Amino acid sequence: MNAQVANTPRAGQDQITAYMREKGERARAASRAMARADSGLKNACLFALARILRDEADAILGANDRDMRAGKAAKLDAALLDRLELNLDRIAAMADGVREIANLSDPVGELTDMRLRPSGIQVGRMRVPLGVVGIVYESRPNVTADAASLCLKSGNACILRGGSEAMHSNLAIARCIARALRDAGLPEDAVQVLDITDRRTVGQLVAMPEYVDVVIPRGGKGLVEAVSNNARVPVIKHLDGVCHVFIDRDADLDKAVSVAVNAKTQRYGTCNTMETLLVDEPIAQQVLPELGRIFSEAGVELRGCERTRAAIALAKPASETDWAAEYLAPILAVKVVDGLDQAMDHIARYGSAHTDAIVTENYSRARRFLREVDSSSVMVNASTRFADGYEYGLGAEVGISTDKFHARGPVGLEGLTSQKWIVLGDGNVR
Amino acid sequence: MNAQVANTPRAGQDQITAYMREKGERARAASRAMARADSGLKNACLFALARILRDEADAILGANDRDMRAGKAAKLDAALLDRLELNLDRIAAMADGVREIANLSDPVGELTDMRLRPSGIQVGRMRVPLGVVGIVYESRPNVTADAASLCLKSGNACILRGGSEAMHSNLAIARCIARALRDAGLPEDAVQVLDITDRRTVGQLVAMPEYVDVVIPRGGKGLVEAVSNNARVPVIKHLDGVCHVFIDRDADLDKAVSVAVNAKTQRYGTCNTMETLLVDEPIAQQVLPELGRIFSEAGVELRGCERTRAAIALAKPASETDWAAEYLAPILAVKVVDGLDQAMDHIARYGSAHTDAIVTENYSRARRFLREVDSSSVMVNASTRFADGYEYGLGAEVGISTDKFHARGPVGLEGLTSQKWIVLGDGNVR
Repeated sequence: MNAQVANTPRAGQDQITAYMREKGERARAASRAMARADSGLKNACLFALARILRDEADAILGANDRDMRAGKAAKLDAALLDRLELNLDRIAAMADGVREIANLSDPVGELTDMRLRPSGIQVGRMRVPLGVVGIVYESRPNVTADAASLCLKSGNACILRGGSEAMHSNLAIARCIARALRDAGLPEDAVQVLDITDRRTVGQLVAMPEYVDVVIPRGGKGLVEAVSNNARVPVIKHLDGVCHVFIDRDADLDKAVSVAVNAKTQRYGTCNTMETLLVDEPIAQQVLPELGRIFSEAGVELRGCERTRAAIALAKPASETDWAAEYLAPILAVKVVDGLDQAMDHIARYGSAHTDAIVTENYSRARRFLREVDSSSVMVNASTRFADGYEYGLGAEVGISTDKFHARGPVGLEGLTSQKWIVLGDGNVR
Repeated sequence: MNAQVANTPRAGQDQITAYMREKGERARAASRAMARADSGLKNACLFALARILRDEADAILGANDRDMRAGKAAKLDAALLDRLELNLDRIAAMADGVREIANLSDPVGELTDMRLRPSGIQVGRMRVPLGVVGIVYESRPNVTADAASLCLKSGNACILRGGSEAMHSNLAIARCIARALRDAGLPEDAVQVLDITDRRTVGQLVAMPEYVDVVIPRGGKGLVEAVSNNARVPVIKHLDGVCHVFIDRDADLDKAVSVAVNAKTQRYGTCNTMETLLVDEPIAQQVLPELGRIFSEAGVELRGCERTRAAIALAKPASETDWAAEYLAPILAVKVVDGLDQAMDHIARYGSAHTDAIVTENYSRARRFLREVDSSSVMVNASTRFADGYEYGLGAEVGISTDKFHARGPVGLEGLTSQKWIVLGDGNVR
């Protein structure tokens, strides 16, 4: 169907549905060829893409200029325009990212746990692609190259739905991807970049389990909720990051201070930034005054419980909503607790199961915290800021999951795969 | 709330919602204690349950008698009554099943892939329970003990919703479970057996992601679809089993015949039974007449393509619907194909991605089949009937998944767990 037609406000739901189903059908068909493509072929395609992105920099920048001019005319805010803007350095970084993904090891085909059974069959598991991955994202055009590369590397086909403000940039990058696929002898249909941005495309994307195996929203909470609501396919999603550091009574105070300060101040706007500090009562008077000084100097506003305010005069009173707040800003909630159990109860009640850390030299309490805190990352004596695909050695990150099903925490290429069972016999029967 | 009230036809949706939310809240609270319970405690509870089931056999049989009398009065069909009926042997088998689950190794707490990263942190994964598991099942009361035991062993709380026809039996077993939990010092709320069976309880169960982490329907296709439709929580589900055996031109004919015959005739009504036989053209005249004889003697009706009917006179003509049929009966579709690619195309088009096998002595084609057939179990020279949790060495089976996400194929205890990230540091910061 014609993109112009479908993108007009008059495009009917039928037209959107037909458009999306055609994309899905093509992606599903291409996914079979992608699943059997060997690592050499997939890597050749990715190295070609890195080269083509650099070669076509002028065309990409021209398309990006159209998006930028339209964005300025529409008075998009400065932060959004900054995310939207490409330049030669950003294109080079995009190409480097693609090359990095090419250099990751291929998860597909890995055989594990091959065991001989009493019946004589040998049983194990083989890692395989999920099939078709849908990715919904916002203004950054580099996600187009990045998401396509992750899907290609893991043997999946994909359907990419970027933001309308980045449409021309995304389609210019899509043309590079198509050329790289063609050059490598892989099906062009393996990467479907939507050329219409009607909101109903997202609703349709998550309603076609026959064509789409998983959808990953990459963006703010509004986007994630829009994708997750009414989804009929699995969604790898990331919601809040209300992360805690608990300073236990047996903490090494130097470690406690440096972990707490780093967890809050290294970056304010990230999901793995500490939002609530919990301090064990017996140690509160020793550690809180110093932390109060450092946070004040760093310009961090403190909101504390009564016992915190007794130790840090500057701290404002915290209200119930502070304990569940994801500030993403230089604000920190601070609470004095009576021991590990109260700390873990607080985390279970107010946390978001993202990343939580304990600072302690006590072996048994470290073990209990690791075992009992039900978060996607649980840490001992380390800053919550480490919860990240690169820091964990996954290479590029597909997303971060706050769900428990399938994948938790930073999701690498493995999150785009599943395992099937393999049985090798010699004519065995039951 | 009062079960009698909620079970009357006049119970409003509000009452059902409140009833289910209370169950969910209790299960969620108990799940924290279950997650930290060590293996010894969980096993003690299961061994106690096995003992209590035997001790309370009279009470269970009395309750079952009420269900049986009501079932007969309601003129339930004989197969359903047979599944519903308990006797001393069946109770002993139930207790043995519980003991077997106690003897499985505990998946919870397993640490894997602990790697040192350049930053100095040590990163790995710890296997943890999913949290709260909902299980919806039909007439067999033994599922109550079995499902509860699997959830307990894997550190999960559960909400069990059995069929109305088995209500008294299920509640009698639930009382045994509650006593075993109490005796072991575990929270009774860890196993919530619904005492009302209004259909809307299922709709509510799959609509409470805040209380329920996964739902597993155990039963026929109608039940699975009722649970999956509109589910807002993940569902581990099993739909069709349209399984294939492909006899390649380089097959060992003896193996081909015994695998094909076993895959069809060992049991007709199971999901891993072969429903379509594919035979490579160059070998068709050698192998089909013998198979035709054996299947006819076994009383299996054959429905073949034209080339099949040229080799087996008895075969009826197959229509398009036969290729996608899950007969669950002594009927077999047979098709002659031109080589591996055509066989794999047929499987991709008509199969259900459950279990498919190739019979061949050719190394490269065996490798291609294993790699390229996108089914939850893929086999070489073995009967499709092996696709089963016990045969794979998983111990008891939680269910069989025909989805790709999270778990595929037979799902054991591991399918009721997830992995969280663990970071061990020494005061490390970014």
